[in-house]
Amino acid sequence: MGKDSIQTAVAGASGYAGLELARLLLHHPRLQGRAPVFVGRDAEPVRLTEMHPQLADNNGSSGLLVEPFSWELLQERGVELLFLATPHEQSRSWVPEALAHGLRVVDLSGAWRLRAHENRAIYGFHDADAALASQVQAKSVYGLPELHRECIRKAQLVANPGCYATSVILALKPLVAAGWVDLDRGIVCDSKSGVSGAGKAPTASTHFMYAADNLSAYAVFGHRHMGEMLEQLGLEETQITFTPHLLPIPRGILSTTYVTFRQKKEAAEVDACLREFYAASPMVRIFSGRGKTSTHLPQIQYSVRTNYCDIGFQMAKDGRRCIVVSCLDNLLKGAAGQAVENMNLMCGWDEAEGLA
Amino acid sequence: MGKDSIQTAVAGASGYAGLELARLLLHHPRLQGRAPVFVGRDAEPVRLTEMHPQLADNNGSSGLLVEPFSWELLQERGVELLFLATPHEQSRSWVPEALAHGLRVVDLSGAWRLRAHENRAIYGFHDADAALASQVQAKSVYGLPELHRECIRKAQLVANPGCYATSVILALKPLVAAGWVDLDRGIVCDSKSGVSGAGKAPTASTHFMYAADNLSAYAVFGHRHMGEMLEQLGLEETQITFTPHLLPIPRGILSTTYVTFRQKKEAAEVDACLREFYAASPMVRIFSGRGKTSTHLPQIQYSVRTNYCDIGFQMAKDGRRCIVVSCLDNLLKGAAGQAVENMNLMCGWDEAEGLA
Amino acid sequence: MGKDSIQTAVAGASGYAGLELARLLLHHPRLQGRAPVFVGRDAEPVRLTEMHPQLADNNGSSGLLVEPFSWELLQERGVELLFLATPHEQSRSWVPEALAHGLRVVDLSGAWRLRAHENRAIYGFHDADAALASQVQAKSVYGLPELHRECIRKAQLVANPGCYATSVILALKPLVAAGWVDLDRGIVCDSKSGVSGAGKAPTASTHFMYAADNLSAYAVFGHRHMGEMLEQLGLEETQITFTPHLLPIPRGILSTTYVTFRQKKEAAEVDACLREFYAASPMVRIFSGRGKTSTHLPQIQYSVRTNYCDIGFQMAKDGRRCIVVSCLDNLLKGAAGQAVENMNLMCGWDEAEGLA
Amino acid sequence: MGKDSIQTAVAGASGYAGLELARLLLHHPRLQGRAPVFVGRDAEPVRLTEMHPQLADNNGSSGLLVEPFSWELLQERGVELLFLATPHEQSRSWVPEALAHGLRVVDLSGAWRLRAHENRAIYGFHDADAALASQVQAKSVYGLPELHRECIRKAQLVANPGCYATSVILALKPLVAAGWVDLDRGIVCDSKSGVSGAGKAPTASTHFMYAADNLSAYAVFGHRHMGEMLEQLGLEETQITFTPHLLPIPRGILSTTYVTFRQKKEAAEVDACLREFYAASPMVRIFSGRGKTSTHLPQIQYSVRTNYCDIGFQMAKDGRRCIVVSCLDNLLKGAAGQAVENMNLMCGWDEAEGLA
Repeated sequence: MGKDSIQTAVAGASGYAGLELARLLLHHPRLQGRAPVFVGRDAEPVRLTEMHPQLADNNGSSGLLVEPFSWELLQERGVELLFLATPHEQSRSWVPEALAHGLRVVDLSGAWRLRAHENRAIYGFHDADAALASQVQAKSVYGLPELHRECIRKAQLVANPGCYATSVILALKPLVAAGWVDLDRGIVCDSKSGVSGAGKAPTASTHFMYAADNLSAYAVFGHRHMGEMLEQLGLEETQITFTPHLLPIPRGILSTTYVTFRQKKEAAEVDACLREFYAASPMVRIFSGRGKTSTHLPQIQYSVRTNYCDIGFQMAKDGRRCIVVSCLDNLLKGAAGQAVENMNLMCGWDEAEGLA
Repeated sequence: MGKDSIQTAVAGASGYAGLELARLLLHHPRLQGRAPVFVGRDAEPVRLTEMHPQLADNNGSSGLLVEPFSWELLQERGVELLFLATPHEQSRSWVPEALAHGLRVVDLSGAWRLRAHENRAIYGFHDADAALASQVQAKSVYGLPELHRECIRKAQLVANPGCYATSVILALKPLVAAGWVDLDRGIVCDSKSGVSGAGKAPTASTHFMYAADNLSAYAVFGHRHMGEMLEQLGLEETQITFTPHLLPIPRGILSTTYVTFRQKKEAAEVDACLREFYAASPMVRIFSGRGKTSTHLPQIQYSVRTNYCDIGFQMAKDGRRCIVVSCLDNLLKGAAGQAVENMNLMCGWDEAEGLA
Repeated sequence: MGKDSIQTAVAGASGYAGLELARLLLHHPRLQGRAPVFVGRDAEPVRLTEMHPQLADNNGSSGLLVEPFSWELLQERGVELLFLATPHEQSRSWVPEALAHGLRVVDLSGAWRLRAHENRAIYGFHDADAALASQVQAKSVYGLPELHRECIRKAQLVANPGCYATSVILALKPLVAAGWVDLDRGIVCDSKSGVSGAGKAPTASTHFMYAADNLSAYAVFGHRHMGEMLEQLGLEETQITFTPHLLPIPRGILSTTYVTFRQKKEAAEVDACLREFYAASPMVRIFSGRGKTSTHLPQIQYSVRTNYCDIGFQMAKDGRRCIVVSCLDNLLKGAAGQAVENMNLMCGWDEAEGLA
Repeated sequence: MGKDSIQTAVAGASGYAGLELARLLLHHPRLQGRAPVFVGRDAEPVRLTEMHPQLADNNGSSGLLVEPFSWELLQERGVELLFLATPHEQSRSWVPEALAHGLRVVDLSGAWRLRAHENRAIYGFHDADAALASQVQAKSVYGLPELHRECIRKAQLVANPGCYATSVILALKPLVAAGWVDLDRGIVCDSKSGVSGAGKAPTASTHFMYAADNLSAYAVFGHRHMGEMLEQLGLEETQITFTPHLLPIPRGILSTTYVTFRQKKEAAEVDACLREFYAASPMVRIFSGRGKTSTHLPQIQYSVRTNYCDIGFQMAKDGRRCIVVSCLDNLLKGAAGQAVENMNLMCGWDEAEGLA
């Protein structure tokens, strides 16, 4: 901690979050002259710009390679912090090894986010060494800086949150924590995400012909990010209903969250509640919900390609019903950007460094 | 009624609903050889295919004209049924005249849909003759065939429902009518519509650069279609929360509606409830919600360019929470197609004629 | 033939062209009460509406099945005309068998379109019986009604043209046939197609994230449809340069074709040339190119979801350079619609029947 | 100049290029602590973040204002360099005044790009003082760094190039300058641009319903950027045919340019020609065209949101025909990014500074 710079590595740069992570780390002011070590599954080194031509400089290549993964390579190169942008199962098996090699880890998968066994069940992990897995799990910190800033600073393993979960937890936490929300009435979270959230593998539902000009709900009452919401918000499963939808856009999430307050509240009170909660959080923008128009509600276009989570709200005339709209870029605040935030905290740097 | 054919007219063929209406009427089996009289605001006749090149035949024109509107013209041509695809204010002032001229009217605007004065207030109508307006209003039938089939058959004035309202009312009516829904818990309707719903006038929010790659909530707690939902479902304003969103697609609406049942229900009961309610309704398709996957939930792609309203649902394991997903094409079942359904009923024809 | 109706079958209804073909045949006025026999590769029958939920009626199913393919099944059902919407290689091997079983065939693949061996080489066909293949090839008629109407009427095997080829050949044929085009200057065809042209298989380049917000040229100097253009236009390979591009839209092709005339021409002459050539062709619409504005040039939006090929042009002031713009729906005039046109001709029916 | 920093101003920050310019200048390393003075046409100051919520920091505002334009204000603030992202006509009338006030100017409009009166005619400028206008015109430098780097360094007025013109000129200049292109055969440039190129004003053709799922050619044989191509490439009007198309994407241009060489060339020669020409140009990336596949041709997705112009090519087997594909972001290399490049040169800074 407190170092001027560190040596990082990235496993899984070929995916969408991996590309964003590469971009952020290559331009990070603390990492100038210390490009990440990129590692992947190919047996031979591949040029990073072959995977992602947009990263090329004017010579048509950045010269950077994605090298075959091995723990030896990481040690030779003096890697201190490893980003895993790998599939859940792979992260589940690699993290204990990484920790054993003395590496700090930011894992972008869902492998280590969930404390309760029943919430993790949906992933179907088969831990080779269950006792070790439990130990590692116990060390893991849920990497949402707005909630766990202090723990992240010292963490060896940071489990970077899910994109939907980030948008819903940040929208609800201040109001739930204040005890304002009537949980018996139930909370409804209607979320919509761009296609990059579904990953790079070509499937029937990532085909342009399926996603374009369409909208579909999916994983109704059964999405993997539900567990994160329950654990981080301290809710029962019956108190929150979450429905994700697939939007015909490349990136961005908008969550429309419906709560009922126990008692009447003024819009100004809600505004103050949100602003106070996030007073020390550089990556949350509160949109004023005071006006009658919806002009100042967040929209996907305002948050996309930024690392901000934008939050706005609107109150019904009855003073009880409140709609919170939260937006973020699923590849940035919902993945790679938040991972960099976590690195910043782990290294004692400014939380927003390299994210403006 | 009961005639083989009738003479129709269309005012407002230049808009998106107008184009669909023209297309449907020109291909309607009952109207072969009796093209609608198209009337508009231009002082000179304009070729219909100049407005809508897609309607041209292989000679580059259908020969049809949009003629300057006058009541005399309509009478000369023997018009019996007038479709108004005109702005709300214009429909509000024309309908009394049309009825006075002995015409039957299907009005696609919001002018005559709302019974309660307070629900209508949002339109800000200034009736020239308030007493006459009240009389006309009293005669108006809300043109949702699934609810008012019999009244529509005899109606002189049919107020064609709003697109959002159609999707929400059809999703909820069977469950609310059965008395199953816990209204104290509140109903949430999260709706998403394509851009054609915003009309043809170029505005800041219909600009491609605003709508594309974006999603935005608008008219939160203040959309004009709320009144239709309240009146048709028999609800109080505090019992239902409706939020529309602007989708980056040309056409289609998906509404995700969240209800809590008073008592536990099985999915099979919900399925049966919906199927029974719509047993006699040819334009509603029930998607089975029984499976665990969301495969059989409606999606915009399945209903668009059809006149169907597709309805599916999914139940939580608690047996109390139910998510209903309804989809339709806002220009067809949400506008022009439903107008033709209404014409079919008014003329004693099969409800689905010309709509397959 | 001149029969009132026939029994058809469709192999390959699961793809995009197959869906359109199913739709067209199910609504074709000559085939009422005689649904096509749908056959596919699954070992068990599958409901057609499971593949394509949009085809369901209000009972949620049309009742139609896609049955396991066998020649016996086709014979039992009395099939007379078989549509093959199958991969090239499969069509190449099935067609000789189909003809041997006495079936007439409209093949939508590229298997039998090309006369010259060197043009066919790009498909890499391995004919089991080369002599038989040659015999079949010799019988095949290129199914572009505007050029080969008379041959199609009597054909046993119609090779339905490629989508790009249709748009380019129809744009050029009248001008090339008139001898007006300076072939030494070279013709340039710059074509752009929606993603459905790439087929239903999920691949890296049909992924939403690849196609959306993007445009890319592909198969430069090496697209399979080149052979069709050369053979049908009677050109040498060096006389025409064709570049396809992948558009971020579901369907539609626009080809911008650049020619230089040997001698000065007036726009009116070009207009007359096109109109005369297509005087007897119901599925070509000539857009007048006479004005100075581009208002009357075809656009994808006007031809999509129709079976028309729209053609317009603009002349340079020098009277020599002419730009021809042609548009069509790659799934209709570029595939399934043209297949139905061919069926109409083969059966002695009106060319445009069921295609309005 | 060689100063460490300067004071800039931006007129016209409300448009799309203006937003990108604001973003670039606010993050430019040389301008830290010296935000541009933003000026506009409103009579009262407006918050920049009200126009562009995406520019807000986590307090919901950057604090920056767009102030009412006046020459006095610019002088008070010590402005040295003025960016005009204003309409053509306004730039035409303001630039002489700006120069008279001793300001250096980068004008993003088409007002001062064209040397020949006949090429300028299409804009229909009415110069208040024709003699002054001629003097100013004579001083103007065409701001394409790859062609006029040295002149730009010393220029008082830089006319920032058109977006289409940049993509076409950069694709062609090396080959034309080498004398390789057979001009008698004619050059064809088929260009496609995203909707932001059409500006922020809502019009019939920027409406989402017009642009989405569509492609259209426009301004055929009559686009305003033609003059720039003729002047910068030294061509006659009959030697080059340029057709722009409106793509259904927010941003990006792809130009497909067809040339015929006088004599056979190897791909390696073409590659070398391009690489040598742009050896000193940091903002051009040459994609190798040597392979048989089109993998290495530029695509819009690779250049968008960068300041690069990407250039690739493919040769026909005849060694004479060559297709050059060039891509850029119309708001960056086609507008605001190139304007910053010009500022960098004018100030003696590194051409690519602040543009990585």
